[in-house]
Amino acid sequence: MTELMLHPDRLLPSETSTREIARRLYNEVKDLPIISPHGHTDPEWFANNEPFGDAAELLIRPDHYVFRMLYSQGIALESLGVPTTDGTPVETDPRKIWRTFANNYWLFRGTPSRMWLDYVFKVVFGLNKVLTKDTAEEYFDTITDSLQKPEFYPRALFEKYRIETLATTESPLDDLRHHKKIRESGWQGNVITAYRPDPVVDPEFEGFVENIEELGSLTGEDTATWAGYLAALRNRREYFKSMGATSTDHGHPTAITADLTLADCKALYSKALTGHCSAAEAEIFRGQMLTEMAAMSIEDGLVMQIHPGSFRNHNPQVFAKFGRDKGADIPSQTEYVNALKPLLDKFGNDTRLSIILFTLDETVYSRELAPLAGHYPTLKLGPSWWFHDSPEGMRRFREQITETAGFYNTVGFNDDTRAFLSIPARHDVARRMDCGFLAQLVAEHRIREDEARDVALDLSYNLVKRAYKLD
Amino acid sequence: MTELMLHPDRLLPSETSTREIARRLYNEVKDLPIISPHGHTDPEWFANNEPFGDAAELLIRPDHYVFRMLYSQGIALESLGVPTTDGTPVETDPRKIWRTFANNYWLFRGTPSRMWLDYVFKVVFGLNKVLTKDTAEEYFDTITDSLQKPEFYPRALFEKYRIETLATTESPLDDLRHHKKIRESGWQGNVITAYRPDPVVDPEFEGFVENIEELGSLTGEDTATWAGYLAALRNRREYFKSMGATSTDHGHPTAITADLTLADCKALYSKALTGHCSAAEAEIFRGQMLTEMAAMSIEDGLVMQIHPGSFRNHNPQVFAKFGRDKGADIPSQTEYVNALKPLLDKFGNDTRLSIILFTLDETVYSRELAPLAGHYPTLKLGPSWWFHDSPEGMRRFREQITETAGFYNTVGFNDDTRAFLSIPARHDVARRMDCGFLAQLVAEHRIREDEARDVALDLSYNLVKRAYKLD
Amino acid sequence: MTELMLHPDRLLPSETSTREIARRLYNEVKDLPIISPHGHTDPEWFANNEPFGDAAELLIRPDHYVFRMLYSQGIALESLGVPTTDGTPVETDPRKIWRTFANNYWLFRGTPSRMWLDYVFKVVFGLNKVLTKDTAEEYFDTITDSLQKPEFYPRALFEKYRIETLATTESPLDDLRHHKKIRESGWQGNVITAYRPDPVVDPEFEGFVENIEELGSLTGEDTATWAGYLAALRNRREYFKSMGATSTDHGHPTAITADLTLADCKALYSKALTGHCSAAEAEIFRGQMLTEMAAMSIEDGLVMQIHPGSFRNHNPQVFAKFGRDKGADIPSQTEYVNALKPLLDKFGNDTRLSIILFTLDETVYSRELAPLAGHYPTLKLGPSWWFHDSPEGMRRFREQITETAGFYNTVGFNDDTRAFLSIPARHDVARRMDCGFLAQLVAEHRIREDEARDVALDLSYNLVKRAYKLD
Repeated sequence: MTELMLHPDRLLPSETSTREIARRLYNEVKDLPIISPHGHTDPEWFANNEPFGDAAELLIRPDHYVFRMLYSQGIALESLGVPTTDGTPVETDPRKIWRTFANNYWLFRGTPSRMWLDYVFKVVFGLNKVLTKDTAEEYFDTITDSLQKPEFYPRALFEKYRIETLATTESPLDDLRHHKKIRESGWQGNVITAYRPDPVVDPEFEGFVENIEELGSLTGEDTATWAGYLAALRNRREYFKSMGATSTDHGHPTAITADLTLADCKALYSKALTGHCSAAEAEIFRGQMLTEMAAMSIEDGLVMQIHPGSFRNHNPQVFAKFGRDKGADIPSQTEYVNALKPLLDKFGNDTRLSIILFTLDETVYSRELAPLAGHYPTLKLGPSWWFHDSPEGMRRFREQITETAGFYNTVGFNDDTRAFLSIPARHDVARRMDCGFLAQLVAEHRIREDEARDVALDLSYNLVKRAYKLD
Repeated sequence: MTELMLHPDRLLPSETSTREIARRLYNEVKDLPIISPHGHTDPEWFANNEPFGDAAELLIRPDHYVFRMLYSQGIALESLGVPTTDGTPVETDPRKIWRTFANNYWLFRGTPSRMWLDYVFKVVFGLNKVLTKDTAEEYFDTITDSLQKPEFYPRALFEKYRIETLATTESPLDDLRHHKKIRESGWQGNVITAYRPDPVVDPEFEGFVENIEELGSLTGEDTATWAGYLAALRNRREYFKSMGATSTDHGHPTAITADLTLADCKALYSKALTGHCSAAEAEIFRGQMLTEMAAMSIEDGLVMQIHPGSFRNHNPQVFAKFGRDKGADIPSQTEYVNALKPLLDKFGNDTRLSIILFTLDETVYSRELAPLAGHYPTLKLGPSWWFHDSPEGMRRFREQITETAGFYNTVGFNDDTRAFLSIPARHDVARRMDCGFLAQLVAEHRIREDEARDVALDLSYNLVKRAYKLD
Repeated sequence: MTELMLHPDRLLPSETSTREIARRLYNEVKDLPIISPHGHTDPEWFANNEPFGDAAELLIRPDHYVFRMLYSQGIALESLGVPTTDGTPVETDPRKIWRTFANNYWLFRGTPSRMWLDYVFKVVFGLNKVLTKDTAEEYFDTITDSLQKPEFYPRALFEKYRIETLATTESPLDDLRHHKKIRESGWQGNVITAYRPDPVVDPEFEGFVENIEELGSLTGEDTATWAGYLAALRNRREYFKSMGATSTDHGHPTAITADLTLADCKALYSKALTGHCSAAEAEIFRGQMLTEMAAMSIEDGLVMQIHPGSFRNHNPQVFAKFGRDKGADIPSQTEYVNALKPLLDKFGNDTRLSIILFTLDETVYSRELAPLAGHYPTLKLGPSWWFHDSPEGMRRFREQITETAGFYNTVGFNDDTRAFLSIPARHDVARRMDCGFLAQLVAEHRIREDEARDVALDLSYNLVKRAYKLD
């Protein structure tokens, strides 16, 4: 059985002199605290601090990176215990699920999932052999047993991971009870929320009309009117701020923004409330709501994040049987230069506003995003995202962004994960790749090493703190 | 005169430690048999086993990679002996054609053609000086003389090249007489066909209406009806299977698929038979036929290949004078996420179906193809194609595909060539580049070397065998 | 205070053996004269040969690369002395402007501006410490004092820089008085003009209708008619040729070309003269004018340059206050395969015509531009442009172009700058990057070193001379 190694130089450049520079830079940043300003962990974990379940429940069932790859190779989601929405029975024996995963772990060669998982296996659970079908049982037992120990409870891991701030993401309809419980518990871990209004600003979101009604009840505003609707959204932003939120997040199919007249806003909102918007109307409404959110951000200071370009639930059979977030979201081409113009025309020069842009379409890095962020004071660029949260993805991001936008129009790393255990692994990959990129610049005498060290610290810690107003 | 060298380390990474890993990997795969499951060689060569003609006829006149470059620099196609369709006389002296080529061989610096040709010159013909105007005569004589020797006959080269399987590509209207002759000859070379129905499924194909009639005669089916048409296509698929075919191939302008009602299919087919489809109707018809072909593949097990995105015959003057395939096909932007949805909605989760996707638009690697193939069990990705069948093209393919789709949603290499002599050169380039890519992963401690060796064997041999059902 | 170093190996590959090859190649080209066939320097400098102003006036106020980055970080353009068009007062103290710049110079880490500026500081002004707030005063004084000395006058720098030819860019309405004065002065510096007809061929250009009238007066042609208009354009081309022009330049929003009937041309031109073209009509008119310009180029031999794809003045607030060219031009997606077809259908095979294509959309390098230039004898590719005139931009250009188009369908480097002092720095970056790229090919045994040396000379000097007919 082969030893599981995490080589100290992993992901650093292989050329000797460059690697030495990279090592020196990495040593400066590897132990910095983690700031995770955008992600999808469950606040209930930290509110209740109960042990995570077994190996399969923790590491396979909720990780769409993992089961999408297995599914692509013909392994049924049912056999991985992915719960169905239509009542079809699925595998319930976690050990059998784990075996299926272990037998196919070689499929992940060359993927970031493999690096994140190996990190968790080795650093968190102390496993010393590589995962294969021969070590499947040992892995399952070690992980499952460990999880029952207090030092593997959510809060203990949070502290062990030296997480300075962790943001979750909630709908305006969420009562934030878990965040409240955390705050009242006396525990010092800084878990904050972020305001994700998709369910109440997207007319195509499931249950939109009912969501708006609920928003009205929750806030006491008359959401049957445009003014009341905006007041309700503002009201929830205030509440989220009181629970630590420093940002909003917007997951739209495109980056389209709009700047309609008040009359048009009212008319379109009325239409949306009937539940009968056309696709084009829904698109404009979402676009208008980005501009409205920007206006509110100027008032209340919340940083806007825009995450456009995912074709959600591309596979209708999988959606019908298993629901959302089952690895069937596919990126599509995303345009920013025209799409953002209505919002930018209005607020693009207002230094009170800060918008962080993300993309799943790498072709816009050098063509659109770097030029936009290299000009507009309101715009910053989020790190390479989702499918591109990977070594090569990070390399392309820096290579294609830096020359036009510099380092200081980017905002450091965020992990965007629901896989809590992998958070340090993901930040470690980012720090290594950034140090490798900087080392290359130093080795080619494009910046000095003392500057590279400053930049490495900024990319790993300072920029994210500033960009998300966590300082 | 400069020596012609094929350096043993060519294309391997230049950094010492990485190159050593790459050498070890390459040594494991360099002598594996060649499987060439997709290409455009002429089966007549192997049926009749007659000597190839002279140097110009073999290496220049049929190679659009070669004469497109010369043409781009103002060298007339006539002077290269490219036959005209309008009767304009062209150069007929092969030696003069060869001289024109030799005098301009420096234009190919940095191109894959240069690497393929040098390989053929050195390995096949034993030439030891580089090709320049000073060695043009020696080259012409050596190559032309050699071709007359039995060891340079098609079957002998096939065996010398250790080709395990070679697929050609034929229209359903082809009677496959050459394949029949090969089979009946007792020769052991495994030359199979592939089913390329473009002439009978594309209403814009030259002679479509007549082709359909011919399809009817050939099969005894009533191709005046939709049902008879499908039966005829099915019939020819069976015949192709009996001649070794394991795959179909589809060269559409876009990746669009459709899933029309039966009534709409019938109506659209009737319209197509009149020869008066609009461009939009032709597009939908082709799209529908991809879905029909997928349905037939589920029945008969033929693997589907989709090669979209070439703007054929972009240069009307060249087309008018010289016809198709004269280096004037230009890639264009190609969308997959929406285009494939009708087909995928219907069959995307059916593990009996296997579709291999290709592209000429590299922007879709990380944005569309890797995410699609990393989810749908029916989808696999073909290697970097045509203009991208090159060292840098292969590097970009692996760098942009692997992290999301892994290695095992790709299908190894295929050469797609009509230049038979270059087949080993092309496979050698692919093996070197894959080993170099893997060596980089090993050097950066992203996979272990023992894994890289397994992957190298898979990419060079095992995957293609499995993907094309040649095992 | 840190020493300002320009490392002799800067931008060369860091791997030892590759760097040694690169050094040898670079040594062959580093001292070649500079040919700058496309740029935006002011001919008045060389006509009058008066000293440049102070450090801020020379290096900050006119350089949109510099102030766009500062602006993106919230620094007001007013504080940088950028003149307003609406009368808002701006900072006038050059020393204060310089301090603002110096305090923020770290923002340029990793950008080409930083490399160009450091080169100017060190090589031109002999500065030995890096620019920070601590050295701001010393920098300002040294630069401003130097500029008063004769050896820093425009003509002296031109000679010191060993510029063999420098092209500026003028409107057909320009009387070229400065070029005339240069020619009459007896000074030997070869400063030529280039014909940029945007103001008289783009119906959306500010003052188009008046421009056409002025064109009529200037040439004595009746520009109220289509024939007279073409004659007037032809007339000015002749005049520009007499002042050294060898090329035209076209800065259109897209690459669209058209080939209308004469009747449609006349009708569309009449409409344009009313000043009421729709956006679509203006687009077609510009497209038609590209085809007309190609026809004239076949007559008079001027090389055409097409620079499409910039969304000019994207920021209306900045435009209203500061006017054009203030760092708010943003690239957008640009299509060539269909857009150029009307022009290419007509003239694409005419070897008397030479068109040099540029792009701000890197996705077209491998997909569209290299295949087009690798086929059409009329087409060549300009170097990586504007935002992509950078080390990584150049690397991507060569990596994505060369395998399909070779080196000889490219035209060497041009700087496209209005920042005269940075010209040698920019050419030096290009020579280093090209030598590095070639060294990599040599190190991987893809070309021989003797060939790489020839190519390096071609890319640095010979190709540009031939492509712009300067030989």
